[in-house]
Amino acid sequence: MRIGLCRCHGPMYAPENSMGAGDAASSGGRVDRQLFEDIAIGSRICAAEGVFDAFGHLSVRHPTTPDRFFMTKSMAPALATADDIVELDLDSRPCGGDSRPLFLERFIHGEIYKARPDVRSIVHSHSPSVIPFSLVENPMRAMFHTAAFIAAGVPVFDIAELYGETDMLVSDQDKGKALARSLGGKSVCLMRAHGSVAVGPSLQHAVSRAVYTEINAKLQWQATTLGGPIAALSEGEGRLADAVNLAGVGRPWELWKKRVLRDMRDE
Amino acid sequence: MRIGLCRCHGPMYAPENSMGAGDAASSGGRVDRQLFEDIAIGSRICAAEGVFDAFGHLSVRHPTTPDRFFMTKSMAPALATADDIVELDLDSRPCGGDSRPLFLERFIHGEIYKARPDVRSIVHSHSPSVIPFSLVENPMRAMFHTAAFIAAGVPVFDIAELYGETDMLVSDQDKGKALARSLGGKSVCLMRAHGSVAVGPSLQHAVSRAVYTEINAKLQWQATTLGGPIAALSEGEGRLADAVNLAGVGRPWELWKKRVLRDMRDE
Amino acid sequence: MRIGLCRCHGPMYAPENSMGAGDAASSGGRVDRQLFEDIAIGSRICAAEGVFDAFGHLSVRHPTTPDRFFMTKSMAPALATADDIVELDLDSRPCGGDSRPLFLERFIHGEIYKARPDVRSIVHSHSPSVIPFSLVENPMRAMFHTAAFIAAGVPVFDIAELYGETDMLVSDQDKGKALARSLGGKSVCLMRAHGSVAVGPSLQHAVSRAVYTEINAKLQWQATTLGGPIAALSEGEGRLADAVNLAGVGRPWELWKKRVLRDMRDE
Amino acid sequence: MRIGLCRCHGPMYAPENSMGAGDAASSGGRVDRQLFEDIAIGSRICAAEGVFDAFGHLSVRHPTTPDRFFMTKSMAPALATADDIVELDLDSRPCGGDSRPLFLERFIHGEIYKARPDVRSIVHSHSPSVIPFSLVENPMRAMFHTAAFIAAGVPVFDIAELYGETDMLVSDQDKGKALARSLGGKSVCLMRAHGSVAVGPSLQHAVSRAVYTEINAKLQWQATTLGGPIAALSEGEGRLADAVNLAGVGRPWELWKKRVLRDMRDE
Repeated sequence: MRIGLCRCHGPMYAPENSMGAGDAASSGGRVDRQLFEDIAIGSRICAAEGVFDAFGHLSVRHPTTPDRFFMTKSMAPALATADDIVELDLDSRPCGGDSRPLFLERFIHGEIYKARPDVRSIVHSHSPSVIPFSLVENPMRAMFHTAAFIAAGVPVFDIAELYGETDMLVSDQDKGKALARSLGGKSVCLMRAHGSVAVGPSLQHAVSRAVYTEINAKLQWQATTLGGPIAALSEGEGRLADAVNLAGVGRPWELWKKRVLRDMRDE
Repeated sequence: MRIGLCRCHGPMYAPENSMGAGDAASSGGRVDRQLFEDIAIGSRICAAEGVFDAFGHLSVRHPTTPDRFFMTKSMAPALATADDIVELDLDSRPCGGDSRPLFLERFIHGEIYKARPDVRSIVHSHSPSVIPFSLVENPMRAMFHTAAFIAAGVPVFDIAELYGETDMLVSDQDKGKALARSLGGKSVCLMRAHGSVAVGPSLQHAVSRAVYTEINAKLQWQATTLGGPIAALSEGEGRLADAVNLAGVGRPWELWKKRVLRDMRDE
Repeated sequence: MRIGLCRCHGPMYAPENSMGAGDAASSGGRVDRQLFEDIAIGSRICAAEGVFDAFGHLSVRHPTTPDRFFMTKSMAPALATADDIVELDLDSRPCGGDSRPLFLERFIHGEIYKARPDVRSIVHSHSPSVIPFSLVENPMRAMFHTAAFIAAGVPVFDIAELYGETDMLVSDQDKGKALARSLGGKSVCLMRAHGSVAVGPSLQHAVSRAVYTEINAKLQWQATTLGGPIAALSEGEGRLADAVNLAGVGRPWELWKKRVLRDMRDE
Repeated sequence: MRIGLCRCHGPMYAPENSMGAGDAASSGGRVDRQLFEDIAIGSRICAAEGVFDAFGHLSVRHPTTPDRFFMTKSMAPALATADDIVELDLDSRPCGGDSRPLFLERFIHGEIYKARPDVRSIVHSHSPSVIPFSLVENPMRAMFHTAAFIAAGVPVFDIAELYGETDMLVSDQDKGKALARSLGGKSVCLMRAHGSVAVGPSLQHAVSRAVYTEINAKLQWQATTLGGPIAALSEGEGRLADAVNLAGVGRPWELWKKRVLRDMRDE
């Protein structure tokens, strides 16, 4: 890891592969080391809050070069550190000739960043309570204001519709594009018999939406099995409540981060 | 934090803002520092027992000045300390010009204290098993004697009935009054697509009721999905059993407190 | 705590109240201190395994004087130590004038010991998955061989049948006798809107049955909500499997004890 | 424990009983001590991930002598160490006259190893979410790609069909053969009112399948109670996805192992 100095923002870092050249993708430029720390912390938060198990991944768009993004190499997200971060271009190729193993499904990230300029962070998970909703006709609805982003609707991407029988993985650009089309302008998209993606305008928002999608799914399951109609948030209530949540994302982040840092200290 | 000496009760403390003046609300007078410790411990108990996540808040009425109450500044309740306590008047304005950020929904507390002189402590939470009961027609009933206070009935406050589409928050006095009217003389009131409030004659009772409302909700969900009629506590059984619980609140409190103090030591 | 020496079995202990006299109940004689340790460990196991929360209690019959039994004073069972043990006679009166506070429901224990000479240990709990089965008509059945004792049938005691509206507590000898009649010759009896009792030929067996009653209840809930008939253990299968379990109770006990001792060390 | 030196692979170990003779089964030869460590770690992983409680067992076929296998002596798997490993022949007799107590159900392992040359490791558990599926007519299906091995079908072995009322245990060779017949060529077989077996081409695969069978069962329960048809993995999707999982088993194993080693360090 090389360390540079940015006159404006203090010390800056770049992954070791950011000096790559030739026809490989080139780095989008050095970023603050804190961003890599945050990706590692966000990955561990998703694990600690039950969104990730040994699988799942989190990415952040490059803060100044929008056609690059960062995520960890292929690894269990609960073990991520700032040294594990890889930079990719929007075709999901590693920058600077980074030869570390990459997630098979990195194309989820690249293609959504292409299709959604407003998105700055993406979480892909197999979060357990969400999977059943990818399998049934019962659509997800927003059970409470903290999951207000769900009130806009949660589409389901069924890879079999376009590709027939597959290994279920979004393992190339074409499948990534199809998933991005299913997501459309929403915050969450379920993936049949697989999991989901949650997106947001920042790392904190994407993580928060992944966590609250899991919580909302469990609540909706319980409400559904109680029987009868469910007085879920209306679309308008969801829009109004989400504005509050967007402003208040710092509070859960600080709590989750504190827990993760304590666990890291105890390791 | 200034420390004073009360001739009768030993050392007394007041939050730093309690000397405020002008047209700001004035403090109701110094109280024993132990009360602030108890608010912090109660907040952490609610988090440890699954009633709070990053959100939720707990207040206690001023012990000698009934038109003042205490709660933490706006923060994750799992991180509360005695230094985070703010004093408010019943219009939910901070006393002594305290400029720390406050919970948007502090009006829940102020307006219930106005309407219910018997209430000395209030918990507002998004406790997960309770939320589904705020969304369905199936009313909460008391599943066992430890949750006997539920047998008196649990009303549901739907903010949309009076205010149409909102961000769901009880963020002003008027909405607080409407919630207090829904609560009426009960111990618990659900809030549609949001959470609940639990009230009691002491901090220990309000916390205990918040915890047992969550436990009871989970039990009722399980009993409901087993099918058939549920032989819940009758109103009379609830009244008789609640008298025993009111006297015995010290036992769960001591256990929960011990756990929270151990966790604080390990931090 | 006085310490004596028994020529046959090494050091022996008796609770401080065992020298009582007058018309108070007299002690059944000194017992090995290990028995008191085991009651404390068994209480903590029930808490650690989710059978007890702040409430619930465990007793053991005196090993040589069958009309005496031991349990802790009134306290949260998760905090029990060998110093908290009280000796009682079968009318549930403390021996030797012990003046420590006692559980209101100690009569559950005294009256079952009277009615069931084969029972040497009793657990009374509000174990959460069991409570729903005390409220519905769906009877408990044995879902797997480790809970084989349930195949003999699980009666439900409804205190209201004999006593009308009460505080739900088995708080005198008469109610204890009624509960013992409902239990009959079984290993477990549910108590409507309250909890259950599990009994066994030793402390280890009673604790194990309390734990597996909770586990079985959760399994039966899940099986029931899957729909259709449930191929539960037959009564004959239950009898045959229970014989194996009776012989093998040491294995779970050692594991649970090890965990509890580790937690005590970390406190 | 004797320690030898293998010229090719470094230090080699054999259980103390591997020098046995007479008409007792003879050892299949020394193996790397790491294998015994892995059996202990795998046993503890199954406990930590909720597949084992005080019961359950894991075996591995001898790496060079296919008619021998290793498992722990009869004990709680959460406490297993490399010193607890016993070698058995395919009639499930201990090698070298090992006189330590053995699992009553070791015949599950011996008979499956006889019938399935491709199987190199077996997990038998009472994993809780799986048991309900052994009791109802609703067959297990694959809810997501990580549990793809389930898409091939999950048979149910009902010991009563051949043996009538028993203690439910697979406690002899004959019953082990019957179970192996039910398993057929599949990766998982449920055992009515008892539990399940999961098998695989390596220890890591068998453990992973046991863990994901439990996870899949919980997901299928939730999906079923949501109502309506479930768009589970097709058999073809399962075959394609399982190929990916077979290659990627190292990732969850490393995470689970790291957790177990941390817990062992804290003991």
